[in-house]
Order: sequence, then C-alpha cells, then structure tokens
Amino acid sequence: MHDTSIVKPWAGRFNAPTDAFVEAFTASVAFDQRLYRYDIQGSIAHATMLAQQGILTAAECDAIISGLEAVQSEIEAGTFKWSIALEDVHMNIETALTAKIGEAGKKLHTGRSRNDQIATDVRLWLRDEIDLIQLEIKRLQTALLDLAEREADTILPGFTHLQVAQPITFGHHLLAWFEMLERDRDRFTDCRRRLNVMPLGAAALAGTTYPIDRQYTAQLLGFDRPAENSLDAVSDRDFAIEFTAAAAILMMHLSRYSEELILWSSAQFGFIELSDSFCTGSSIMPQKKNPDVPELVRGKSGRIFGHLMGLLTLMKSQPLAYNKDNQEDKEPLFDTVDNLKGSLRVYADMMGNVTCHRERMRVAAKQGFSTATDLADYLVRNGIAFRDAHEIVGKAVAFGVREGRDLAELTLAELQQFSVSIQADVFAVLTLEGSVAARNHLGGTAPNQVRSAIVRARTRLNTEERN
Amino acid sequence: MHDTSIVKPWAGRFNAPTDAFVEAFTASVAFDQRLYRYDIQGSIAHATMLAQQGILTAAECDAIISGLEAVQSEIEAGTFKWSIALEDVHMNIETALTAKIGEAGKKLHTGRSRNDQIATDVRLWLRDEIDLIQLEIKRLQTALLDLAEREADTILPGFTHLQVAQPITFGHHLLAWFEMLERDRDRFTDCRRRLNVMPLGAAALAGTTYPIDRQYTAQLLGFDRPAENSLDAVSDRDFAIEFTAAAAILMMHLSRYSEELILWSSAQFGFIELSDSFCTGSSIMPQKKNPDVPELVRGKSGRIFGHLMGLLTLMKSQPLAYNKDNQEDKEPLFDTVDNLKGSLRVYADMMGNVTCHRERMRVAAKQGFSTATDLADYLVRNGIAFRDAHEIVGKAVAFGVREGRDLAELTLAELQQFSVSIQADVFAVLTLEGSVAARNHLGGTAPNQVRSAIVRARTRLNTEERN
Amino acid sequence: MHDTSIVKPWAGRFNAPTDAFVEAFTASVAFDQRLYRYDIQGSIAHATMLAQQGILTAAECDAIISGLEAVQSEIEAGTFKWSIALEDVHMNIETALTAKIGEAGKKLHTGRSRNDQIATDVRLWLRDEIDLIQLEIKRLQTALLDLAEREADTILPGFTHLQVAQPITFGHHLLAWFEMLERDRDRFTDCRRRLNVMPLGAAALAGTTYPIDRQYTAQLLGFDRPAENSLDAVSDRDFAIEFTAAAAILMMHLSRYSEELILWSSAQFGFIELSDSFCTGSSIMPQKKNPDVPELVRGKSGRIFGHLMGLLTLMKSQPLAYNKDNQEDKEPLFDTVDNLKGSLRVYADMMGNVTCHRERMRVAAKQGFSTATDLADYLVRNGIAFRDAHEIVGKAVAFGVREGRDLAELTLAELQQFSVSIQADVFAVLTLEGSVAARNHLGGTAPNQVRSAIVRARTRLNTEERN
Amino acid sequence: MHDTSIVKPWAGRFNAPTDAFVEAFTASVAFDQRLYRYDIQGSIAHATMLAQQGILTAAECDAIISGLEAVQSEIEAGTFKWSIALEDVHMNIETALTAKIGEAGKKLHTGRSRNDQIATDVRLWLRDEIDLIQLEIKRLQTALLDLAEREADTILPGFTHLQVAQPITFGHHLLAWFEMLERDRDRFTDCRRRLNVMPLGAAALAGTTYPIDRQYTAQLLGFDRPAENSLDAVSDRDFAIEFTAAAAILMMHLSRYSEELILWSSAQFGFIELSDSFCTGSSIMPQKKNPDVPELVRGKSGRIFGHLMGLLTLMKSQPLAYNKDNQEDKEPLFDTVDNLKGSLRVYADMMGNVTCHRERMRVAAKQGFSTATDLADYLVRNGIAFRDAHEIVGKAVAFGVREGRDLAELTLAELQQFSVSIQADVFAVLTLEGSVAARNHLGGTAPNQVRSAIVRARTRLNTEERN
Repeated sequence: MHDTSIVKPWAGRFNAPTDAFVEAFTASVAFDQRLYRYDIQGSIAHATMLAQQGILTAAECDAIISGLEAVQSEIEAGTFKWSIALEDVHMNIETALTAKIGEAGKKLHTGRSRNDQIATDVRLWLRDEIDLIQLEIKRLQTALLDLAEREADTILPGFTHLQVAQPITFGHHLLAWFEMLERDRDRFTDCRRRLNVMPLGAAALAGTTYPIDRQYTAQLLGFDRPAENSLDAVSDRDFAIEFTAAAAILMMHLSRYSEELILWSSAQFGFIELSDSFCTGSSIMPQKKNPDVPELVRGKSGRIFGHLMGLLTLMKSQPLAYNKDNQEDKEPLFDTVDNLKGSLRVYADMMGNVTCHRERMRVAAKQGFSTATDLADYLVRNGIAFRDAHEIVGKAVAFGVREGRDLAELTLAELQQFSVSIQADVFAVLTLEGSVAARNHLGGTAPNQVRSAIVRARTRLNTEERN
Repeated sequence: MHDTSIVKPWAGRFNAPTDAFVEAFTASVAFDQRLYRYDIQGSIAHATMLAQQGILTAAECDAIISGLEAVQSEIEAGTFKWSIALEDVHMNIETALTAKIGEAGKKLHTGRSRNDQIATDVRLWLRDEIDLIQLEIKRLQTALLDLAEREADTILPGFTHLQVAQPITFGHHLLAWFEMLERDRDRFTDCRRRLNVMPLGAAALAGTTYPIDRQYTAQLLGFDRPAENSLDAVSDRDFAIEFTAAAAILMMHLSRYSEELILWSSAQFGFIELSDSFCTGSSIMPQKKNPDVPELVRGKSGRIFGHLMGLLTLMKSQPLAYNKDNQEDKEPLFDTVDNLKGSLRVYADMMGNVTCHRERMRVAAKQGFSTATDLADYLVRNGIAFRDAHEIVGKAVAFGVREGRDLAELTLAELQQFSVSIQADVFAVLTLEGSVAARNHLGGTAPNQVRSAIVRARTRLNTEERN
Repeated sequence: MHDTSIVKPWAGRFNAPTDAFVEAFTASVAFDQRLYRYDIQGSIAHATMLAQQGILTAAECDAIISGLEAVQSEIEAGTFKWSIALEDVHMNIETALTAKIGEAGKKLHTGRSRNDQIATDVRLWLRDEIDLIQLEIKRLQTALLDLAEREADTILPGFTHLQVAQPITFGHHLLAWFEMLERDRDRFTDCRRRLNVMPLGAAALAGTTYPIDRQYTAQLLGFDRPAENSLDAVSDRDFAIEFTAAAAILMMHLSRYSEELILWSSAQFGFIELSDSFCTGSSIMPQKKNPDVPELVRGKSGRIFGHLMGLLTLMKSQPLAYNKDNQEDKEPLFDTVDNLKGSLRVYADMMGNVTCHRERMRVAAKQGFSTATDLADYLVRNGIAFRDAHEIVGKAVAFGVREGRDLAELTLAELQQFSVSIQADVFAVLTLEGSVAARNHLGGTAPNQVRSAIVRARTRLNTEERN
Repeated sequence: MHDTSIVKPWAGRFNAPTDAFVEAFTASVAFDQRLYRYDIQGSIAHATMLAQQGILTAAECDAIISGLEAVQSEIEAGTFKWSIALEDVHMNIETALTAKIGEAGKKLHTGRSRNDQIATDVRLWLRDEIDLIQLEIKRLQTALLDLAEREADTILPGFTHLQVAQPITFGHHLLAWFEMLERDRDRFTDCRRRLNVMPLGAAALAGTTYPIDRQYTAQLLGFDRPAENSLDAVSDRDFAIEFTAAAAILMMHLSRYSEELILWSSAQFGFIELSDSFCTGSSIMPQKKNPDVPELVRGKSGRIFGHLMGLLTLMKSQPLAYNKDNQEDKEPLFDTVDNLKGSLRVYADMMGNVTCHRERMRVAAKQGFSTATDLADYLVRNGIAFRDAHEIVGKAVAFGVREGRDLAELTLAELQQFSVSIQADVFAVLTLEGSVAARNHLGGTAPNQVRSAIVRARTRLNTEERN
C-alpha cells in the first residue's frame, strides 16, 4: 500500500518521507476519484486556454487532450490504477498523463494549483447533480399532481395537533406537499446560479503570473463568469453549505410526508396502503408489513442535517486561504447528494402506487366534530359575533362529547338549546361535502379550487421561469 | 400570575381550568409580544378586506382600526398589560380591543385563525428585518471597500495552511471578504422573495367559508401573492430555516474574518491594531488589550449554527398542519436576527478603525520564501516544464532553509547551482512588488486589479439588480 | 445606559473609552447576574482562604464577608443596581463591595482572576441545578411506576414500524420509559462527579504567586478536589457540553414519549386522554382539545439539540487559554437547564393525570394479527423449525387478510390448511392474555414480570448507589 | 444485482416482490457486514443457551456452532458471497448457515428477533472499539507526558485572547492537554459501563414465549446483566449517542490542540516544527511545508459533531419500539469510530516527533509585558491593594507601550514614577524564570509543580480505578 518508489510532486523541499499511516490518513483519492470526469473536463479547458494564449503550443495541447481522454477511458474501463501515494484525483491523473505523453504532461499544471482545480471540479460536479436532483423533484411533483387529480374529491379529516380539525380533500393535502417541493426546487435553482462561477485562474490563492484568459476558460466550461477574487475563489465553500442546507430543508419536508404515510398506514388510521413492493416484513412476526421506505427516508433526514452541521463547523473560523481542513468537505457532500437523489427517486416511484381507503378517511372525517367551525361560521352569518359563536359551539361540542354524538347527529332542538339562531338549514353546513365545498377561494380545500390549483401547478412545472 | 378570572377564548368545551404551571409553560406572550406591530398591521388589513367584502360594516371596520391603533399606542407607551393567561400576542391584543370597542372586536377573528395570523406576523416581521440586515451588510461592505482602497498597495503574506504562500495586497484580501458578503446579501434577497407570500385566508388549515379576497389583503400588506395552499401556508416554516441557514453562513464568514483579525492582532503577527474602543482589558493582567469583538463574534457563530439545527429538528417529521411544536420557532429566530444585526453593526463600526502595521506586514511577506512560485514561473518562461521547475525551486528552497536565507538573499551563483536557466534578471521577479504586480488578471492580486475590482464592487453595491 | 463616569477596572492601559454599542454588545451582566449567589459564595471561600494563609487580615476578611452578604441581600431585595458598564456579575459585585467597605474590597481579587472565578461560579451553579434535575427525574420516574402499577394488566398493542406487532401490557410499556430515565439520571451523576473539581487558584491561566491553599478552598466549597492544571481549569468547558449532551439525550427520550402521547390521544388511536388541565383549545375550532404539553416538549428537543451543537462549535479550535468566545457558553446552558427542568416538571405532573381507555387498547390489540408470533412459537413447540413455522403463519395471515378475519377468528379447519400440527389447543395461545402471560422472563411483558420489575425499580430509585 | 430467486424470510404474507431499487435502498448489508464477528458470537451464545434450556438438542447446537464457525472462516477468507436481496448481515449469515447444515439452521432464530440481535451486535462491537480507543488515548497521553517531561523548564508565553498573558512552562501547557484527555477517557469508561447490558431475549419487543435463561446468555457474552425491559432494549440507541457525544468532545479537544500546533508552526510564531513525515507540500508553491495532520484533524471535528446531530435527530420523536429509521444509526457510528481512532493514532505518533524552538518561545515570552501581573503582585506584597496595584501597573505598561520597551527594560526611576513602593528588588520578579517559579502551588506552572504533576499523571494512567 505504501509505495516508497513514488516521488511526491512536492518532495524537493523535504528531508523525510511521509509516514505510511499519515499518507493513508491524509490522502483523498479514495473518495475524490469520483470527480475524475470533471477534473479531466477542467484540465482540457485549461489546456485549451493555455494554447490559445500561447503558453502551450498547439501540439502540447493536443497531446494533453488526447492523453487525458485516454486516461478517462482507462478509468471508465476500470483499468486505471489509483495510488494513495499520489494523494488525490488530480495527482493521479496528472502522473498518468505524464507517463503517457511525457514532457507536455508536466506543463499542464502551468498557471494553476490544486486549490483552484478542486474548487472547479466540485462546482462542475455539483452543477450536474443539481440538474439531476431537479429532475427527480419534478418527477415526484408530477406523481403528486396525478394523485391529487385522482383524489380531488376524496374527503379526509384535516388535523392540527393530530386532533381532527376540519374536513379537507385529499387532493388539497397532496398539493401542500407539492408547494413545499416547489420552494425546494427554487432554492436549488438559486444555489446553482450562485455556484456557477469559475475558480480557475485563482491558482494557489493570488492568481498567476501567466497571461491567462479566464473569460475564455469560463465560457468553455459553461460558467457564468470567472470568480471576482482569487483568495475567495479557493477558500469559499459556502456553495456546498448552501446546497446542503437546501437538501436538509427538502429532507425535512420528506420526513414530514413520511410521518404522515406511516401514520396513515397504521391499523388505527388505515387511510392508505403502500404497495407491497415498497414494504418489508419481519424475521419473527409473520404478519408484519412495514412501511420501510418512509421510515428510512424519515431517518435519513438526520443524516443530512448532520452533514450540514459538519460543513458549517468545518469552515468555522478558518483563516484564508485554503487549509487542509477543507478536504473534509467532500464526503458529506457526496453522501448528501446520493441520499437525496435516492430518497426522491424512491418517493416518486412509491407515490404512484398508493392505495386510498376512501371509506376509512370518510368515517374518520365524520368524527371529532370536524364541522364545528362551520357551525360557528353559520352563526356568524346569522348575525352573531365570531367570538360569541365560538363559545356557543364550544358548549354544543361539550354536550356532544357527553352524549357521544357528533354535531350532525344532534337534533335541531338539542342544537337550539345553545342558540335560537340555529335553524333547520344548519344540517347542510354540517355535512362533509358542504364543509369542503364552502372553502371556495384561492388556496382553499374545495374540490374545484384543488382542480384549478393543479392546472396552475402543471403550468409552473412546465415553465423554466421562476414562479 | 395565574389569573383565574380570565376566561380562555376556547373554554367552552373544557371542564377543568389550565394548570398554573402549564399555563406559564405553554404561553408564548413573553416573547411573541415583540410582533405586536405586525399583528396589528395584519389585523387592520384583514378588517379592511372584510369590510370591502361586506363581511364587516364600514363602522365596525373603523372601530376596529382605531381600537387597534389605540392598543398600539398603549403598547408603545409601555402602559399595556400583557397577560400570560391570554397565552399570546394575538389574544392579548384582541381581548384589549374588545374591551375597548365592544361587539365589533369580537368580529375581527371572522375568517381567520391564529394559525394563519402568526404565520403572517412572522413573515411581515422577518421581511422588515431582512431589509435592515441588508443595510448593515452594505454598510460593512462599504467599510471594507474604503479600507481596501486605502490599502490597495499594501503587501502582506498570503497564507495557505497558515504557512506563508505568496505575497498579496491587503486590498485584495479585503475584497475576498467583500465577495463573501455579496453572496450572503444575495441569499437574503432570495429568502425574502420566497417568504413574501401571504398565509392569511388559510384560516386554521383549510381556508374559510367567508367570501374573502386574498389578493386584496396581500396587496394591502405588500405581499407578492397569497399562498397557493392553505395547509402549506399554516404549516410551512422553511422560510425561517432558510433565513437561519443564510444567517449561519454569514456568521461562518464573520467567524473567518474574526479569526484573521485575532491572529493579526497578536504580538506574533502584529499586522493590525484594533481601536481601543473595540477592545477590553483584564481584571488581573494590567497589560492586556483583548480583541473582544472579533472573539465574541467568532463565538456567536456557534449560537446561530445551533439555532439552525434546532429549527430543522423542530420541524422534522411533524405531520400537517399546525402543531404546538411550532411555537418553538420564534425564540431562535429572534435571537438569530438580534445577534446577526449586532455582529454586522459592530463589525462595520470596527473596520473603519483598523490600523495597519505595513512594515510588519512587509517584513513577514519577505520571509517564508513567498516568491518561490515566481521563481518557478520564471523557469517555465525560460522553457522548463512546470513540474521540473517546481522541483528545481524546491531544492533551492531546501538550500535556503539550511542557510537561513530567503531566495532573494541567495547569490546568482548559488541559484544557478539548481538551474543554469537562472540569470541576473531573476531578482526582479523575486521582489514583493514584482510578485504582486505580475498577477495581473481579473481576480488577481495586482494593485491595479484591486482598484478595478473596487470600482466594480461599488457599482454592484449601488445597483438593486442581482449581480 | 452608557455611563462614562464609570472607570473600567482595567482602564490604566487604554487611551480611548469603549464604544457605547460595543459596551452593550460585549457585556454579560444581563445574563450572568443570575450567578450572583455562587459568585458571592466563591468570593467568601476565597477570602476565608486568603485570611487563613495570612494574605488578608482577619478584619479584612470579615469586612469582605459581611459586605458580600449585604450585597446579596440587596440583590435579593431587588434594590441592587446592575451596570452594563461594569461588564459582568463579578465586577458589579466587587465594585459594590468596595463602595461599601472601602480598601478591603480592593483586596478581594488578590490571587484570582475573572477567568477562574467564572469557571467556579458556573460549576457551583450547575452542580445545584443537576441536583434539582435529578429530583425532577425521580419524581417523573415515580409517577411512571405508579401508573405502571395501576396498568400492569392492561393490554394494548405493541408496535414496531407503527404496525401492530404483539400484545403488550401498558405497565410494561411505561417501564421502558422508566429505564430510559434511569440511564439519564446516571449520566447526570457522572457529569456531576466530573464537574465537581475546583478551578480557583488557576487565576488568569498560570496560577498565582501568592501562597494559596487550594485544598482548603475546595473543601469550603464542597468540591472533590482542586483542578490539576491551571490552563485547563480556565479553558475547559467540556463539563457544560457533557451536561448539555446528557440533557439532549433526555429530551430525545421525552420527545419519544411525547410522540406516543400525541398518537394515543388522537381520535384514531384513542388509547388515552390527557387531563383538560394539560391541554388547550383553538381560537377558531370550538371542538378542539390539543395535547399542547407533549407537543411543546417534543418541540423543545430541537432547542436543546441546537444548544449542544452551539456549544461544541463554540469551543472548536479555540487555542488555550480563555478567549472571549467562551462568554457565549452561558445563555445556551441557562436555557437548557430551564427548559429541561420545566419539561420534567410538567411531565411528572401530567403523568399522574392520564386516563386510559382500556377497551380501545384491547380492541386495537386484537387487530393486526398480533398473536401471529405466538402461533409460530406454538408450531415450534410442536416440532417445526422456526423458519418453517414463520412461513406457515405468514400464509395463514395472508389468508386472514383476504378473509378480513384475525387468526383467532379462523376455524380450526381453516388453520389446519396451513399445518396439520395445529390442534384445538391453539386457541389458548391466540388470546391476548395467553400471549402476554407467556412472555414470562426477566424483561418480558407478562404482568407478573411487570410487577417484579416495579419492585426492583422502586428499590433502585431509593438507593443512592449506582445501579 | 436484484436476485429474484432469493425468497425473503418474511415473504409468506406478501403478494408482490420488492422493487429492485427499493431493495438496494433499504438493504443494510453493504455496511452492517462489518459486524459479522459479533453477530456470530451472539448467535453462538444464543444457541448454547437454547441447548442448555432444552430448546435445541445438543446435536443441533453443535451443528449450529460449527456451521457458524465455517461461515466466519469464509468471511475472513473473503470467499463469502454477500447478497443485497438478503437485506442484512443477520439474514446473510443465517441463510448461509442453513445452506450448510440444513434443518438445525432454521432453528437458530427461535426466541429471538433481528431487533434484539442487531442491538446486541452493535453493543458487542462498540465495547471492543471503546477498549481500543482507550488504548489510543493512553498512548497519546503517554506521548504528552514524555514531551512534558522533556520541556518542563521550557518557557513560552501563555496566551489569553491570543494576547501574551503570562509566562508559562511548555510542560505545563502539555499537561493541560493531558487533563482533557483524562476526562475523555473517563467518559468512555462510563459509556462502556452503561452500554454493557444485554438486549437478547427482548425478541421483537415483548420478550419470548420460550423458557430462555438471559442471565446465562449475558454471562457467555460478558455483559454485566440482561436489559431490564424488552421494549427499551430494542428501541434504545442512547448508548450510541452518548458514545458519539464523548467522541465529539474528544475531537473538540483535538481541534484545540490542532489549532495551537498550526499557530505554533507558522513563521510568525515559530515555536515548534512538526516532523516532515507528518506534513505535505504544495503542487504549485515549492517552498511549502504544511501541517496537514493537525489541519485535517481539526476539520474532522465537524464531521463527528455532524454525526452526533444526525443521531439525535434520527431518534427524535420515534414511537416505540423498533422503527426502520434506526438502520441509519450504523454508518455515522462506524465513521465516528474510524475517524476517532485514526486521529488519536496519528496524534500519538506525531507528538513524539515535535521539535521545540525554545529560543523563539523565550523571545516571545519576553514581549507583551508578560510579567505585568508579577509586578502587580509585588506591589500587593508591599502593601498596596490589588485593584490599586493593577491600575499602577496599567499606567506603567501604557508608558512602556509608548516607549517601545518592556517592563524589565524600564529603569528603576521610570518605574518609580508610578509607585514609590517599587524598589531595586523588583527586577527579580520581572524575569521569566522568577515569574514561572513563583506560581508554585498545585496546578501552577512552576517547573517543580509540573514534575510533580507528571508523576501523579503517570500513576493515574497506570491505575485501572477512576481518578
């Protein structure tokens, strides 16, 4: 493992070789090799710019490019030999390049440093990942809209404090999830815009003495512009923290849906059933069908919150510019991306396979005096101030609790004990359908509002512009 | 403290009064009274809309508005009696209103709930605070630009790994701080846009049965639009988390500056001196002058990171819609705002009062072979591949370390031991001025680049559009 | 607010007064005045030791002690004037002392520093708070044992993955909570032992030149011993972090109980009902009775997790010895103690007032094939390997799901379709009572095991020794 | 990858196979295979107990044990085929066992569940890891004591606020680090004691119907006792959180040492030099020698803090008993152990190779008026109250700052300007040796105190009992 024959590229100044355990402890190649494609992409753009500026000859540039392409092929074929002694993805690739093409390979690192190189690699990689994540978010949003459309008229109890509050439509509930994801998607768009700035040219920290053209390199790599300040460009990791914060918020949302899916899958709620394909059983209890996917996703929220905390702590009070601490930014970032994409994917698949037990939902909505607010509103329409109406209905509910009957099950005479303003027409407002249909304004739970909201949502999803 | 004479607005349904300790434990008025101005502003807009829609009469609306204004005056005069028994800012104000204007006061709560009310209050408040925060950021940025202009030619060592790396200009270093703040400012702009959506009309969770006009209320309150979904509107706290994440990143940046100011104020570095007004002494050691402000700000970063973690955890796996847990969102948010504003303010004041010890900076920059990269670049320009040049200079540095002399202090003959390509003109590139002037491209440390960057920065600062 | 007439105790070396905003921003007296009692206690012990060692005269010592006692009386009477200009609790008290007793007051600070003083104050305070916290834990544990005793025979479904798993007794469930608290209590005991070490004598960081007797001061203050190293004594804050970690784990436990109480209070579960005194209502929905206390405690877990993260970040990479950052340790610590004690207290009160709906529990336990494992075990006892028995029962459950009947509701003939080993005696093992009674070993859910466990638990609670 | 030929052990009840992506997403075998040795150890003890109780025959037990040993050999030889379709380490091993020994293999899972099995595996594993961690802590402590002994007389400036405070001995400083590690070690001891309790017998959550002997199994596995409550035993993860909290505190300590080593290695401080073997160079700057190891360890503190936060969040508000979320506990725990052990190991190696630049330390200690407190103490001994003495010295320092001379460089006449109590003997107290020697009490920085402390420390290190 500890290959003493390899000469470190910076060995000139040193008297003693690196300790073998230290070498493994400080090397990053085990995880940063994942960036190889972006490292090569960045090197090709850098070499192209150097050639345009006359710093490399055209022949050198061509040799470098075809050499790098050969290295990439080897990596993708699985035949590339990664070396811990060469520390990181950059040195592994550069050393292989020089072994392949000789002298020209030694010129690639002209006018750059590993500091601006890694900052560039990570941005290129994360930019691509954000694009993939946004596709997954959209796929999940589409699944939610399809389900909402199917269940636009389905009534279930809305809860606050996990107590039955008011009847709502299931389509409306699903659209709440859609909205959260819409903000999540928007946050990733902002994050992507902020990170799409090129560090190359910053070199170690101060820029370089070669006559480079950073605009050109930025253009080759699809960056919006070169970074304004070289020290900042190599030191900044806030793009990674911002990304992880956006991921943490999204995972928080998924953990909330998970909680609901788990509750609703319980025998006590029984509102929905997940497909067998998304559940597992027990090694001891033969009857079990467990909602593993939502549970696992709920659990993964903690993991991402932890990574966010780790990254913030990592950067806390580091003086400029690059410090070795920053090597620790990659593993949490990689793990965040992987778990976020996996969670979104499995959720999008799962939501297309949810069975609704509409009758259980309906029965539950009828319990718990869910139309008490409707009665209060009825009284207000009949001229009673809201606070007084609230109190009247509170007493009627207390009566119902004692009697074991819901409001709609009380007789008119019983209801009139609490207010003479209550007339026979009250029973229309106490039905579930009456209750949801009455909440008929933008953002309300009425089925026709849900259908309009779905139309607007589909439009937003298909529009590139920010909503 | 436990006033049993006060009847809870929801008491109708209950048999037993609230336990006294529970009442204090669950009440939020001790901290949410801070929102009174926004609560009243929201109520006035709500009443105005109710009147426009014919749900209140014009007379009722007028009574409510003048009643609320009277309450606001009392609060601001310090004569208002806050009651824990009334739980929160909303019930305290509404109860006082009704005491003042009678019947009409009981009608204010028509078509709304405390759930959409608090969500609205917090957004209105945070929107104002973001505006103030952005002003403080700009003030600090301006202080940095002024200092950068003054010190555009000042040379100090740039560090990586806290080892002397290359000479840089102090102006350039300060601009790195400017850039970080520029991204911070941009993040708050995005956050503000996302939060500027109106929850009112969501009522408890499902919307309301009254014929409300949410567009009108939104317009009265300066919101961009009403929230699309009522369940989401009362449940969502991601705006608070996103804000706190942006604050945490900003505090991370301030903790990095703090670290540098503390280092530079040490006897060992001695690069700068903070004004006496921003330092304190010791109760035991008569000679001490401590950089308290940067230390305290560095410490406060942990506090804000903690609030971010607390808010994420708070929301984790809560089912929709509102749960009492959410009451815990306010104290961390308030504390984040206060400490962020305080830290920015004290930093903006302090940066205008920094003394630079230019001679100490210069001496430090001359040490540590800071121009070794310049020598390597010189060799490259003379036809040596960068990797070979790097090795040659590494050996020259090792020689210098043994001799106790820097590269510029070696003789030409000594330098030529390592490469015959080194000629007498080498000494020009080994000077500090030569080194910084040579990094003359966008983002580089050359003084004229710094001056151009300052011009661009001032333009950005004075432009409303996003950079 | 900014009183320029007050001379800072360290002003000798300074040329410019402290900036007014800086003074308020850096002062700690607004929150550390809470420590006054411990500050005075520490000062009295310090003076007593100085007098014993001949560093103060007996008269000076007496003057100091009675002066400090007078200050304490003023503080407790609310007549003491705290000054922000005097920065902190120490300087406020010392200045008042000197104003009262003159020259001798100026001698109190001999041989100490605010650095060892604050470290001592916080430890004395936290030691007392831990004692109170442990009493609250015990009170809650006792409430749980009482309830467990009452409900030792009550059967409800045990859940895994929130799916019905096996019947358990409610007493057994409550004892799980008891065990978690037992470990929590044990952690605080360990934390208290580790923090009960005296910093005094460390002075600023290096010790003092006076002939002090640290063993004597430690004994006066009830510390186990003086701290071994002066630099460590003034820099260490791990006792605060360890305490907060123990608090975070306890709050995690309370958040788990809270989740269960909230679930069980829902209309869908309906297992328990909290007393009205621990619930609140809604401003809009007249029927609501919300389990505010468990919700709020669940929410408070995030707050404490955040404080833990804040404290860890605060200390991260601080060089020795004291830095101003450390001033930020107090507010999170105070808030942790207050919220922890409040949560424990309200829980202990609440648990004595829980109504069990035993019939609802029983009905729920009968659903979901909760005795499937019992059937598998029955088959094993009849000679079938467990894995085969598991598969047989799995098929019987699938049959029951299709038929809409539980295992105990199938006929013998139906059951025998799946295994001929099933005989008429199977129905005994499929009853709820049979199932729980059969888990009759240490730690099992059988009622007599629960009763034995309660006896052991009471013994542990009444024993000072660690279990 | 998705092997549809494998029948899940719980498939009996299911109609549809697991989705292929879901299978990979929910499987834990990729990481929990690391526990194989403890899984087998637990199974052997379980089988041994079952045989003793007559639940298995002796022949079955023997077959199981030799089968498990054969599986272990295959795993250790690298020839075992792990299957994702078999979900986890338990099912992979059990399936292989049954393939090897037939019928008896299907009986191993009698009276247990994967829930108590995984809880047992993790505890057994972590117990071993704690033992290894404590050895690494001791090795680092020993390295510190050796260095402290060598440098007991070396004087360097002690800092507060990174400003020169008072002269201290380097040995004394190193002992502060020793003390922190001593508390860390103690915390792991407590954590080990608390986790050494056996979950086996809890089965799924309620215990088992077989006549098991948990005391016997506990004894076979070296546990102190069986867990008291079956629900708690399978749900509790606080041992993992407590461990991670202890690890986070230790890493916080290492990050503090790291900060100091990095500072001291800078050209500006120049107090120490790390061995070349623990440093690396730069790809661009030939002169660089970077303190990578301390930087990386400082960075790794964030990683561990993040894991702690992740674990706390993971457990927050989970209802009892086991939920799938808990699968997420292992990766952070494994990563914590690996990074903690690696950091300790590399630190222990590195500390034996630190070069001290004693002359640089000494020069630094002479600057910054480090003996100002000694002058104040001198005045107190001559009858001046400490507060007055402090002010006198403050003025003398201000004079020295203006003159650019330290206190010891002022003439007697100059000093007497500030107090006539200053006499010629003052210069003895102003020397570095005089200053450190005078702090001659337990915990003080005097060289002879350091030597005594080292003796006590070595004794503690060699004693099993808690200090």
